[in-house]
Parts: sequence; structure tokens; C-alpha cells
Amino acid sequence: MSRTATRAGARHTQPFDLKQYLEMRSEAVNRALDRFLPKESTKPATIHKAMRYSLFAGGKRMRPALCLAAAEACGGGEDAAMPLACAVECIHTYSLIHDDLPAMDNDDYRRGKLTNHKVFGEGIAILAGDALLTQAFEIAAKFRPTPRYAHQQVFRELTRASGSLQLIAGQVADLEGEGKKLDAKELRYIHERKTSALLCCSVRLGGMSANCTTAQLNALADFGYNVGLAFQIIDDILDITQTSEQLGKTAGKDTAAQKATYPSIVGLEKSRKIARQLTEKAFNALKTFRGKAQALEALAVYLLQRDR
Amino acid sequence: MSRTATRAGARHTQPFDLKQYLEMRSEAVNRALDRFLPKESTKPATIHKAMRYSLFAGGKRMRPALCLAAAEACGGGEDAAMPLACAVECIHTYSLIHDDLPAMDNDDYRRGKLTNHKVFGEGIAILAGDALLTQAFEIAAKFRPTPRYAHQQVFRELTRASGSLQLIAGQVADLEGEGKKLDAKELRYIHERKTSALLCCSVRLGGMSANCTTAQLNALADFGYNVGLAFQIIDDILDITQTSEQLGKTAGKDTAAQKATYPSIVGLEKSRKIARQLTEKAFNALKTFRGKAQALEALAVYLLQRDR
Repeated sequence: MSRTATRAGARHTQPFDLKQYLEMRSEAVNRALDRFLPKESTKPATIHKAMRYSLFAGGKRMRPALCLAAAEACGGGEDAAMPLACAVECIHTYSLIHDDLPAMDNDDYRRGKLTNHKVFGEGIAILAGDALLTQAFEIAAKFRPTPRYAHQQVFRELTRASGSLQLIAGQVADLEGEGKKLDAKELRYIHERKTSALLCCSVRLGGMSANCTTAQLNALADFGYNVGLAFQIIDDILDITQTSEQLGKTAGKDTAAQKATYPSIVGLEKSRKIARQLTEKAFNALKTFRGKAQALEALAVYLLQRDR
Repeated sequence: MSRTATRAGARHTQPFDLKQYLEMRSEAVNRALDRFLPKESTKPATIHKAMRYSLFAGGKRMRPALCLAAAEACGGGEDAAMPLACAVECIHTYSLIHDDLPAMDNDDYRRGKLTNHKVFGEGIAILAGDALLTQAFEIAAKFRPTPRYAHQQVFRELTRASGSLQLIAGQVADLEGEGKKLDAKELRYIHERKTSALLCCSVRLGGMSANCTTAQLNALADFGYNVGLAFQIIDDILDITQTSEQLGKTAGKDTAAQKATYPSIVGLEKSRKIARQLTEKAFNALKTFRGKAQALEALAVYLLQRDR
């Protein structure tokens, strides 16, 4: 662990139990998602089965956890942040379903289970993604405005992070970059959009639900951006160092698809170093919360050190 | 034309020039869409080219026209309704791009031009649809709340009409119904969702932008529902009576795909009669506007009598 990270961790006399924190948040998020989504039996059952299949396929709920932790850091509660946390998770899940399609990354496994189109067929998988994206905005509309943030800001935040200039731009650049020799700058462009944008949006929305100040919102953006990039670099590293079994998805697929990754451009050790540096930057961004961002700090360390 | 429709038309001493009305509205909508969407050159250019390709492929802008006409009937202006009119058009266009995909209806032509995936490939076509759906909500967020309607109601209206219980449900039922013998009730379920839902939403959103009363909102829903069903029945009729050239899309494809249609279930003449009856119902719903819904009346007649 870096010195900064250790110092930050040492500020608290009680060690922060992230495992328990994540379990509790993840259970709460699952309950909320179950409440927000139409039941499996709702007609037409196929689409609701397909939506729920991917939404409850064992995702780690990192984005909702980051959203809820950001709300906490700003003195807000879980209930106010929950619709936004769930909206982000629906958007994340829709993007995975569509990314896995044969016309995109053509993946058979995700989180150790068959991908949506392998179970329901391509047509329904496309529609299940569409439906989850739409559902995300329906859930986000349940947000209760705060003195500083109206529905308009929340929607703008969500649509920009997931639109053609961010999340979708990243997937387009990723598709177009296959088989090409990208440099570090081009790769960063992809990572910023495919991963950082939605992570950044998750923590900012958490802050908004807690009526955060502009300074806090900027700090959260800074944190989300750096954690997001580190997260994606670690993903690249795990793709070449772990087996498919360990990951629950096809390992080595970046190499197979001739995709540029941090390790392929700057090497494994340098990639690890960059991820550590980004995590330190993320830590620094949290200083403004004066020790109230324990969960965010622990999440950043966890994302850096994870092995799957 | 039916007696009711003629009577309604006769209320006005000046005949309503629908052609001119549609041209003006359609130009205004095109200008607004052009303003709301990222330029073609915005990076990544591919996605913005693909989004604009389908959005500006010569659509008749019926949904935006209905939205603007509904706003007018309630005493509202074009500017207030425009973001909602454009949002609905983006949703309509996204649904066409995804419906045309090989995994769905597998269509090569739409509005006389190659479909999105034939030009840009399946991966980009899926993403262009995703991006237009997301863009729709970004544009809708530009809506300015009225005393009776906040962003929340507007978003709920849009997400419900386009979500897994309406628009997407219709497409799922349509996919699942292929090659099966459907009865009139099952077919109506599909038509209500694939077509009526978004038409209904278009006019209701127009009303909301004009701060309409609840009675007006209900009348618009009634109008939209009936016009939507009539519209789809006419579509079914045109599919078998017109050539591909006349339609600008593949004719006879319902028959080829063994899709149930109104003519295939109740016959051509009965289908025409039902469409006329639905249009009369739509006319009746407009009584509450006491002659201020000229454009909506003319649009309903046009949709019934169109030949493409």
C-alpha cells in the first residue's frame, strides 16, 4: 500500500470493516432493485426474466456502493441515494448485456454465468438492455430534489455519463480500436469513458442526494475519475494474470482480441504503479471530507487490491 | 370520411392546411433536433454519424407534430413543447434502428434508405440506438416545469411509454408471436404497445408542456390511444396493398414473416372499418377542446387516409 493510503487508513482508530459494509449495502441494493423492477411473472415474462437474469447475476454492486458511500461522506442517508444507486446499476448492467453481444465483444460468460444472449437469444438480449436503460431513468425519477439539486441536474448527470460522449463513446472507440496499435493516450480516452465516467457519476449522484456543496461535488468527481481509471487498469492486469475461473468471465480475451491494454502498452509493473498513483490521487481528493469518507477510502483500496 | 369526422372538419370556415402545417412543424423539429444532437464531427464521429443518419432519414415527424399540436390545443406554445417532441422522436428512431436489426425484424430498407446496421454494421447500430434513447432523456431534461407538471411527471410519462410494459413489451410480443396464430385480442395487445403507447405519450407530453388540465390530459390520452391503434391498422393494410417503392420499406414483410395483422385476422374491409371507427373515437375525444384542436383533427384524418 502507498504511504498516502496507509496514512489515510491510520486516521481511524477502528479498522473499517469493508467486507461487512459491502455485504450490507449490496443486500440493501438488491432489495431496492427487486422492488423497483417489474416481477418476473409480469407480462411479457420473457423480458422481465431477461432483465432480472443479468441484474441479479452476482454483480458486486460497486457502483451503487460508491454512490451510497459518497452520500454518507456528505452526511446523507441511504434512502435518499438509493434510487440513484439503483439507476446507475441498471445502466451498468444494460451496458454489459450489449457489450457481450456477438456484434460487440461476443462473450459467452459473465460473472461465471452464461451471458444474456446465450440464454435468451440476441433479440431479447438487445431488448433487455434497452429496457434496463429505460428502467434506469424511471427509477432515477424517484429521486427527491434537495435544496441544491433538482431532477434536471440528476438527469443531466446520468444521461451525460451514459451517452454518446462518455459510456457509449468508450464502447465505440473500443470497437474501432480492435486490432489497431493504440498509444497510452488513446487507451486512456477509452478507459475514461468506458469506466471512469459512470464511476464518477455514481459518486457525484450520491453527493447530490445528500445536498452536497459544489466543493464536495468536485472532490467526488476527482475521486471517481481516478478510482475509475485505476479500476480499469486493474481489470486489464487481471485479464492477463488470472484464469477465467478466478474471474468468472473469459480471461485473456483482450490479448485474443488484440485489444490494447495498459500492460500491453506500458508493461505489467508500470501498470501496477500507475494504478497505485491514481488511487493516491483519489485519496487526496477525499481530504475535504475530513475523515468522514471512510467507506470511500476503503473502497478505493479494495478496488486496487482486488484479485477478481 | 365518416360523418363525425366531416362534421368536425366543417366546424371551421377556413379549411385547415395540414400539408403546410406539417411542413412548418417538421422543419422546426429538424432544426431543434440538429441543435440538440452532437455534430457529426464530434468524436467519436462514427456514433454521431450513425445517430444522425437514422434521425434525419426522412421520417414524417408524426409524433413530434402530434406533440406540438396537442400543446397548441391546450393553449401552449411550440418552444415549451419542443424538447418533449424531440425526445419522443429520438425514442421512436432508436426503436426503429433496433427493430430493423438481424436479430429482430432483419430489415434492409427503411424510408427508402438502407437501414442503420446495413450502413454502419450491427455493433454501431446497436450503440446508435442506445445513444438515441439516452439522448432522448437528456433532451427531455430541458423541459421547463409548469405549475401542474414537474420533471418527474414528464420522465415517468416517457419511461413508461417506452419501457418493458409498453413499447418494449410490444416488440417482445411481436418477436414471440412470429409464425404463431394470434387472435384479434393478442394482436391488439401488440399494437397498443408498439404504436399507441408512444403516440399517446406524444400528445400527453404536449399537453403537459402547456400546463393542461387533468380533463385535457385524459382527452389527449383517449385521442392518442385511438389514433395510435388506427395508425397501426393502416400500417398493416398498407403492408399488403402497397409496393415496397411506395412505402420506402419492404412491403409484404408481415405476410413473409407470417406475422399476424388486422387484415390477416379480420380481413381488409373489416380492418378499414375498424380504423375508421377508431378515428371517430379519437375525434370525439377532442370535443373538450371546443374547436381548438384543428391540427389534431386534421392529423387524425391524414393518418387514416395516408397511402404510405
